[in-house]
Amino acid sequence: MSAPLVGRLAVIGAGLIGSSIARAAREKGLAGTVVVADRDPAVRARVRELGFADVVADTAADAARDADIVIACVPVGASGAVAAEVGPALKPGAILSDVGSVKAAVVEMMAPHVPAHAQLVPAHPVAGTEFSGPDAGFASLFENRWCIVTPTADADPQAVAALEALWRGMGANVETMSPQHHDLVLAITSHVPHLIAYNIVGTAEHLEHTLTSEVIKFSAGGFRDFTRIAASDPTMWRDVFLYNREAVLEMLGRFTEDLSALQRAIRYGDGDALFEHFTRTRAIRRSIIEQGQETAAPDFGRRVIKDGAAG
Amino acid sequence: MSAPLVGRLAVIGAGLIGSSIARAAREKGLAGTVVVADRDPAVRARVRELGFADVVADTAADAARDADIVIACVPVGASGAVAAEVGPALKPGAILSDVGSVKAAVVEMMAPHVPAHAQLVPAHPVAGTEFSGPDAGFASLFENRWCIVTPTADADPQAVAALEALWRGMGANVETMSPQHHDLVLAITSHVPHLIAYNIVGTAEHLEHTLTSEVIKFSAGGFRDFTRIAASDPTMWRDVFLYNREAVLEMLGRFTEDLSALQRAIRYGDGDALFEHFTRTRAIRRSIIEQGQETAAPDFGRRVIKDGAAG
Repeated sequence: MSAPLVGRLAVIGAGLIGSSIARAAREKGLAGTVVVADRDPAVRARVRELGFADVVADTAADAARDADIVIACVPVGASGAVAAEVGPALKPGAILSDVGSVKAAVVEMMAPHVPAHAQLVPAHPVAGTEFSGPDAGFASLFENRWCIVTPTADADPQAVAALEALWRGMGANVETMSPQHHDLVLAITSHVPHLIAYNIVGTAEHLEHTLTSEVIKFSAGGFRDFTRIAASDPTMWRDVFLYNREAVLEMLGRFTEDLSALQRAIRYGDGDALFEHFTRTRAIRRSIIEQGQETAAPDFGRRVIKDGAAG
Repeated sequence: MSAPLVGRLAVIGAGLIGSSIARAAREKGLAGTVVVADRDPAVRARVRELGFADVVADTAADAARDADIVIACVPVGASGAVAAEVGPALKPGAILSDVGSVKAAVVEMMAPHVPAHAQLVPAHPVAGTEFSGPDAGFASLFENRWCIVTPTADADPQAVAALEALWRGMGANVETMSPQHHDLVLAITSHVPHLIAYNIVGTAEHLEHTLTSEVIKFSAGGFRDFTRIAASDPTMWRDVFLYNREAVLEMLGRFTEDLSALQRAIRYGDGDALFEHFTRTRAIRRSIIEQGQETAAPDFGRRVIKDGAAG
């Protein structure tokens, strides 16, 4: 076997993403040693039980000491504090990275704590499920998913290449862009969709009590798709909206304008406008399936189709 | 084998729902003869190839003649025309039904064409996928899904019971309510979710061209869930919004008010309000899974989790 890509890999925070990184690195032999830290003692105990770390460290600084790559896998709002804690422990040449869904604010919060002899290379794996915590992770989470690396203008190309190699090793496709552009793209592909999913589930919950139970009962008509992403980790998503405020408000403004136009078409019975809109949106779905970012199975392949006559 | 529930079953319209009814009735032996009509000659030819009908009729009236139960499986806006065509052909004691996602308008459009010797019993199976046409149907589509039967006040209980038995035979759970209440419940569980999914996919399509291709590329962040229901049949959904206008506008109003509140929380950085909202919505997801209307598998079970270390 060839030498692993990374000598010592430190993962700070053992949630869905952190525990998936540790599992993937172990399973694919990407690191000589995988060190995992979590500030919650109960999570540390669970990580020991699950056995996906070579070393479980009590503090982020302990984990970062002697590490070649340190990845902060914490809610965006905590990334500054993690950088402040691990910064002094980083060895010369070490790379500090993260997995946050917001990038400009993360750079702003983490960069001041990175010593001159180390490198900050922020990244965002566009992958996840609606579950959280160390039990939720799995090694194949990043396979055929994108990881967006957002190096700052003065980043060391070798450090960027090393981080990209790690993500490719975990099965991800790597794309590079500026932190600001990342935040705009993610606002429309992820942040606003989460917000409106959280919102409609909230609207359903605010209804008269009888109606809410009927909403649950008859959710297969479309509503249940929204509840999946509205079940995602509340702390993570609170921070996304607090730290990507401007791009989210911009995209939300466009969404609301478009919704007003559809609402007016309904009010005035403009069937042609509705039909034309609903036809165009099919093409986007087709592109997503063609690009391998989604299954073509009906209903997400939720269940096996077992009709002999259809064959 | 005991006698089938229905002697002659006529299905008018061989799309996703109509072809699924025909397949289910055949596979489960629910009808002596399954007759399928479609106004499109190409669809009729395809139905013959697929072989899920005992008889393929050229017209809706031909299919309805001598049928015990006739089910119109057409977009809501076409249900009045179908009733006008089959009404004169209905035999004494025949039941005319439909599968429309809107019920009060359907009753209004169909009832005038039903002769005194026949019975109108509208129904709505809350099931479907994002695919359309005779190839998209499958016999198990209605299994463990709800079918809402919305009899009018003067409906014959025996006719209602006969239609309910047919839906139970296809694996559905049957619930009864008034057409007006149905339209309100479906506005929030289905119609508004579809509208906002169509809307956000449209917003993404209106972006600058480069940004649209990035939206497709990075859709795994949440957006792709919305594209599934925004790929549904445009004619069907145009009609839903035209014919359930009032309930949709009412629920859309509530959605918009709630969204304004979340938007304000983001603008003013009110993290507590966001966290509290995002926490409450998790409970709704849990209820839907507990009631068997959804899978508990992460990410809808889109792919198999293959991490040995997680076990």
